[in-house]
Amino acid sequence: MFKYLVSDIHILCLLKFCSADSIERAFQILDQIPGRATGAYSHSQGIKGLRDTIASGIEARDGYPADPNDIFLTDGASPAVHMMMQLLIRSEKDGILCPIPQYPLYSASITLHGGTLVPYYLDEATGWGLEISELKNQLEAAKSKGISIRALVVINPGNPTGQVLSESNQKEIVEFCKKEKLVLLADEVYQENIYVPDKQFHSFKKVSRTMGYGEKDISLVSFQSVSKGYHGECGKRGGYMEVTGFSPDIREQIYKVASVNLCSNISGQILASLVMSPPKVGDESYESYFAEKDAILSSLAKRAKTLEAALNSLEGVTCNRAEGAMYLFPRIELPKKAIEAAKSANKAPDAFYAARLLDATGIVVVPGSGFRQVPGTWHFRCTILPQEDRIPAIVTRLTEFHKGFMDEFRD
Amino acid sequence: MFKYLVSDIHILCLLKFCSADSIERAFQILDQIPGRATGAYSHSQGIKGLRDTIASGIEARDGYPADPNDIFLTDGASPAVHMMMQLLIRSEKDGILCPIPQYPLYSASITLHGGTLVPYYLDEATGWGLEISELKNQLEAAKSKGISIRALVVINPGNPTGQVLSESNQKEIVEFCKKEKLVLLADEVYQENIYVPDKQFHSFKKVSRTMGYGEKDISLVSFQSVSKGYHGECGKRGGYMEVTGFSPDIREQIYKVASVNLCSNISGQILASLVMSPPKVGDESYESYFAEKDAILSSLAKRAKTLEAALNSLEGVTCNRAEGAMYLFPRIELPKKAIEAAKSANKAPDAFYAARLLDATGIVVVPGSGFRQVPGTWHFRCTILPQEDRIPAIVTRLTEFHKGFMDEFRD
Repeated sequence: MFKYLVSDIHILCLLKFCSADSIERAFQILDQIPGRATGAYSHSQGIKGLRDTIASGIEARDGYPADPNDIFLTDGASPAVHMMMQLLIRSEKDGILCPIPQYPLYSASITLHGGTLVPYYLDEATGWGLEISELKNQLEAAKSKGISIRALVVINPGNPTGQVLSESNQKEIVEFCKKEKLVLLADEVYQENIYVPDKQFHSFKKVSRTMGYGEKDISLVSFQSVSKGYHGECGKRGGYMEVTGFSPDIREQIYKVASVNLCSNISGQILASLVMSPPKVGDESYESYFAEKDAILSSLAKRAKTLEAALNSLEGVTCNRAEGAMYLFPRIELPKKAIEAAKSANKAPDAFYAARLLDATGIVVVPGSGFRQVPGTWHFRCTILPQEDRIPAIVTRLTEFHKGFMDEFRD
Repeated sequence: MFKYLVSDIHILCLLKFCSADSIERAFQILDQIPGRATGAYSHSQGIKGLRDTIASGIEARDGYPADPNDIFLTDGASPAVHMMMQLLIRSEKDGILCPIPQYPLYSASITLHGGTLVPYYLDEATGWGLEISELKNQLEAAKSKGISIRALVVINPGNPTGQVLSESNQKEIVEFCKKEKLVLLADEVYQENIYVPDKQFHSFKKVSRTMGYGEKDISLVSFQSVSKGYHGECGKRGGYMEVTGFSPDIREQIYKVASVNLCSNISGQILASLVMSPPKVGDESYESYFAEKDAILSSLAKRAKTLEAALNSLEGVTCNRAEGAMYLFPRIELPKKAIEAAKSANKAPDAFYAARLLDATGIVVVPGSGFRQVPGTWHFRCTILPQEDRIPAIVTRLTEFHKGFMDEFRD
């Protein structure tokens, strides 16, 4: 008991409110931090003990070994993506294959670092399917313009599109990257957010290992975050990337870039380790943890279903199934008069619709043009995050607005 | 009392251990955070209420108005410096004037963003003085090579050199930047770390305002951090930059770059607000706060003095006064034989000395070549951070090592 006596007196206080395993875990984490100095800089890749925990979590998830030296802890997933773009892009002749629609972090980061975004279109008709033939066509087209493709970004589950890739599709993607010698940048931050029984999350690392591919066969970066899942602690800025299949001299460069900002914040590092090592069966806190996790994820699934049905019932709107992530990305056929009105207002038609919706109802959706889309089609991204008991009212207001909008601009 | 009842029960616990004003402050901060959601993303510049607090702190420090909309909260000062370099540098034809010796964040960031570091040398003979004539010469020399100088970096108090600029020198610098239309990047992270009675910290913003220069006269960025001062909470990654004298369209670009990473971590944001608004006279915690602050800063001053004297007593070593920051940067005249031995070991002579010191004593110093220095001179950076009671033993070991080293390599 001695170790609890003085500096940890505030933790003693929590004895009354916290489970034995969470208190034990807190002390384990303190002991993993050199000198228990949570206020000190850490190793630029993050605290070694926390990386050990994360590597064990990845092993438990995938069934394949993970090396703590492959983990780089970061202030959320965004700085990790930037770091890789900075390392991959040398000039505007370097291209990064990105899904369209895409999360705008990718277009912004590629632009900031002076590279070229090479788009591949997800197929809305097949539930935002990722066709290898499309990847090949875009790669060849880019090559013929003198662009050298360095990497392929895959967001799985998809943002803003909410689809979950099948394992067989993932295998094709791995094969494609291996053959074309592309770095596979796997945005896997929504790995816990899957809402349909016929889909499961498989990490690209696991998929490539099941294909018999190891360190020498494919260069792979997996991004993870504490901002998504059932925890959603986005303000804490915690995340990591797992970097495999790079030569020691490239690893050295990744480490150098990571070192420039010294280290990521320690609270975020701790949270990232917790996300990858939740309470286990037998722990005192397991039941309440599991109940909370289950309640959050099943509520998200219900909200997704309700919103999906509501959107599909609107005139001119079609919405793919929300399999995962936190979004729906419905397509909207806008009347010609609405498109003309948008033009007069100097707005993209979907931005015009979204602004009108916001003004009329207070509901915020993000216009599809912010994520890019097949030219001539219009979409918006709608999160499934509003509280469950508010969803019916939101549906009512959205439905009323939409009817009024369509009536106003009907051809 | 109602508001304390349920979710804040852990704070109630602290009632026993914390002063009334610190608990009051905790609730104030919670109320500044929309929905008290410390786990949510914030505005990309940081939580508005915290920026209000920081702006008030700047006003109290400088005696001139500060605008919360000029504050960008960041994960420590380093990302803020990167952000500005990213915005300022368009190509290798863009130059940034940097002090030599300099903190290597600057050389690394300029290299990463593809710009040119234009060095100006601090004058060791005048206590690392900053001569305007040197600035002018370097600017002209760079211009004649087709380099367009965009900004001037000043680190005050200096890192690694520990000098504190005089107000009159700061005025010359402001005048120079105004005349040459340079952005003044003022690294002011050591503003609390001043150890000599004849020097004081003046922010560059205050100096420019006392000269009658406002928003339209000079573009100025001041960097501050929670990692230095008497708090030293570097693992929390908190900091901010105050950005003044930019046009709205450039401000828009700064905001856009800040938005790419969504926001800085909320705990770091809160700490940054605390650093800029410490307890005040009359607060219950004021006395203990002030006693702790005073003890830390006067101990640092004593350590600096002891180390400075010890270094100056070594054969061939001269060390300027440690006026501020956390470092001494002694110059060392190495015997020819030591320089030859370093050459054979494929090391810079100061790196050779530092490696030998580390091997023999466990004492870590950073070779001057890591910070750049006047060619043909050798230095090392030595922090004043070891615990005060350990300093005598460190001095003994360093002195013994140095004697042995000089005897071994004496010409």
